Amino acid sequence: MIQPSSPHPLALSIGDPAGVGPELACAAWALSGTAALPPFFVVGSRRVLEKAARRRGLHLKVRAITAPHEAAAIFPNALPVLDLGDADYTPGVPDDQGAALALAALTEATRLVREGKAGALVTGPIAKSRLARVGFDHPGQTEFVAAACGVAADDAVMMLAGPSLRVVPITVHVALSRVPSLLSAERIERRSAIAAEALVRDFGIPAPRLAVAGLNPHAGEDGRMGSEDAAVIAPAVAALQSRGIDARGPLPADTMFHAAARATYDVAICMYHDQALIPIKALDFDEGVNVTLGLPIVRTSPDHGTAFAIAGTSTARPGATVAAIRMAGECAARRHGA
Amino acid sequence: MIQPSSPHPLALSIGDPAGVGPELACAAWALSGTAALPPFFVVGSRRVLEKAARRRGLHLKVRAITAPHEAAAIFPNALPVLDLGDADYTPGVPDDQGAALALAALTEATRLVREGKAGALVTGPIAKSRLARVGFDHPGQTEFVAAACGVAADDAVMMLAGPSLRVVPITVHVALSRVPSLLSAERIERRSAIAAEALVRDFGIPAPRLAVAGLNPHAGEDGRMGSEDAAVIAPAVAALQSRGIDARGPLPADTMFHAAARATYDVAICMYHDQALIPIKALDFDEGVNVTLGLPIVRTSPDHGTAFAIAGTSTARPGATVAAIRMAGECAARRHGA
Repeated sequence: MIQPSSPHPLALSIGDPAGVGPELACAAWALSGTAALPPFFVVGSRRVLEKAARRRGLHLKVRAITAPHEAAAIFPNALPVLDLGDADYTPGVPDDQGAALALAALTEATRLVREGKAGALVTGPIAKSRLARVGFDHPGQTEFVAAACGVAADDAVMMLAGPSLRVVPITVHVALSRVPSLLSAERIERRSAIAAEALVRDFGIPAPRLAVAGLNPHAGEDGRMGSEDAAVIAPAVAALQSRGIDARGPLPADTMFHAAARATYDVAICMYHDQALIPIKALDFDEGVNVTLGLPIVRTSPDHGTAFAIAGTSTARPGATVAAIRMAGECAARRHGA
Repeated sequence: MIQPSSPHPLALSIGDPAGVGPELACAAWALSGTAALPPFFVVGSRRVLEKAARRRGLHLKVRAITAPHEAAAIFPNALPVLDLGDADYTPGVPDDQGAALALAALTEATRLVREGKAGALVTGPIAKSRLARVGFDHPGQTEFVAAACGVAADDAVMMLAGPSLRVVPITVHVALSRVPSLLSAERIERRSAIAAEALVRDFGIPAPRLAVAGLNPHAGEDGRMGSEDAAVIAPAVAALQSRGIDARGPLPADTMFHAAARATYDVAICMYHDQALIPIKALDFDEGVNVTLGLPIVRTSPDHGTAFAIAGTSTARPGATVAAIRMAGECAARRHGA
C-alpha cells in the first residue's frame, strides 16, 4: 500500500462535462474559504471549467498545473486544474467526447492518489451508461477504483455519510427480490468489519458502535415475519461481537433513524439499498457523501448523479461536493497522521 | 353507513392498562387546552386513570360518565371516563385482567362510534399477543375495527401521518421476501384509490397528489434491477390516472422523502412496511398518527405500542396521542360537515 505523505492536495475528477460536475467543482472552490476546504485540484479540462464558471456567474480564475504539487500555492487565488484537453461544454447534452474526458479524468485522478501524489480522491458524477460507450467496463466508479487498487469489489464497502447519519448497505444495486438470497452471515460480518475498521482509521472513532438493521418488519418479530433476522443477521452480529466490535441487532429498521435512536450508534448497517438510502436522503439530502471504505486510498464522492436535467442552470447545490471534499481531506489527514 | 351527527365527543379506548395508554390519555387531557383538542372521553377504567395520573404527577380529576353525550360538559374541568370497571394498575407488568379491560374498551369504544354516539375512535396501544390470550382473534386493532364495521381487511387502508409526511404501505406485516409476490396492479390501485378518496373526504384535500414508490433501487432503472416497477407498479399508476387521480410513479424511493420532494405530493404510496415507516419515523417520530382509511367511521391511533418498558416512568411523550386526538377530531368534523 502506497502511503501518500499528507497533506497533499486532493484530486477531484471532473465527472461528465455535460453534468453538474464542472460547475460544482467551481462552486466548491468559490466556497473554499468560508467552508475551510483543504486545497484540491480538478483533473479534467481548463476550458470546460472556465465555461462552467462563467455560465454559473462565478468570477474565478482557472489555472492549469502540470503536477499535483503545484496546486497548493495556486489554490488560494485560482482553481488549479490538471488539464487533459478541451471538450465541448454543452450542459445537459452528454456525448462520447465528454464521456471520454470523464473516463480519462477518473483514471488519472485515481492514479495520482494511488501513487501518493494526491492526498485523496473525490470523484465527480458520471453517467455509467455513457462511459460504457467509451470503454468503461465497471458497474460504477466504486468498482473501478477498487479494481485500480487491487481490491475485490465486494470488499470495497460503500458508506453514505451526512451530518445526521452514516449508513452502509450490505447489498446495493440488486432487485429487492434477490436481497434475501444475497444476504449471508459471512457477508454481513465481513462488510460490517470493514466499515468498523474504517471508522477507526479514517473517521477517528476509537470504538465505533454498529447498529445492524433487520431485514423484515420489526426485525421479524420473533420469527413471525421471515426467518432471515434470526437465521442470518443475528449470527453475523454475534460474530462481530466475538471479534470485539460493538455491534447490536438485528434492530427493527423503522425505529432506527429518529434523532434519539441515531445518537446511540455511529453507523447503521443496512440490508438493502433503500433501507440505507431512504433515511439518509430524507435527512441529509443536500449534504450526503458517498465514501468507499476498505481501499488503500481515501475516496469520496458527492452522493448525487450528473443531474443532466439541471446542468448549466445554476440550480445544482454544491453542499454535497463541499462535504465530499471536506470529508476526503479529514479522512486523509487522519489516515496519514497529518 | 351510520353517520354520527358531529360534533360529538371522541371515544378514546384506554389500551392495555400496563402500557403507556392510561398515562398518555391523562397527559393529553392535561394538554387539551393549550393543544386546542376537541372534547373526548376515555373508555376504560376510572381507577386506572386516577392511578396513572397520580403516578405521572398530573393533578386532574377523572369523572365517570354513563353516556357519551355527558362528556362535553365535563371535559373542560375533568377527564370523562366511561367506566368499565376496576383493574390493577401495574405499569410494565401486563396481565390477563388488563388485557380483558383493553379488549372490552376497544369493543365498546368502536360500538359507540359506529352507532354515532361518539364522533371518532382513537385507540390506545394494546399488546396483540396479550389480547389474544383473552379472546382477541385479529392481527391488530385495525383489522378488528374493520371487521366491526363490515369492511374487508384489505380495504381498511393504514396511513401514517405526521407533520412532515403521509405514507400508505401497500403491504404491511409480511416477510420482505413475500412482498414482490403480494404486489399486484389491482391491489396497488385499489388501496391507493381508497387513500385518495379519504384524503378528499377526511383531510380536505380536493385533488390529492399521490407519489407511488418503486419497489427496486432507482425504481428498477429501466428494468435493470427487477421487473416489478415496470410490470406491476407502472400499470397501477396508469390505472389510477385513468380514473382521474393525480398519481405519479413508480418513483425511486430513496429520493422521495427529502423536503423538496415531499412538497410535491400529499401522500406517498409505499410497497412495503419499512419503505413507508422508515421515512415517517425518521422525520416525525414523536408525532406519528396511524389512521385507518376506507372505514365508515373515523379511526386514528398514536403510532406507537404499549411501551411496557417505560410505562409508569413519566417519560412517554404524549405528542402522538395529542396528534391522534386532534386528527380524529379534524377528520370527523370534515366528514360530518361540522
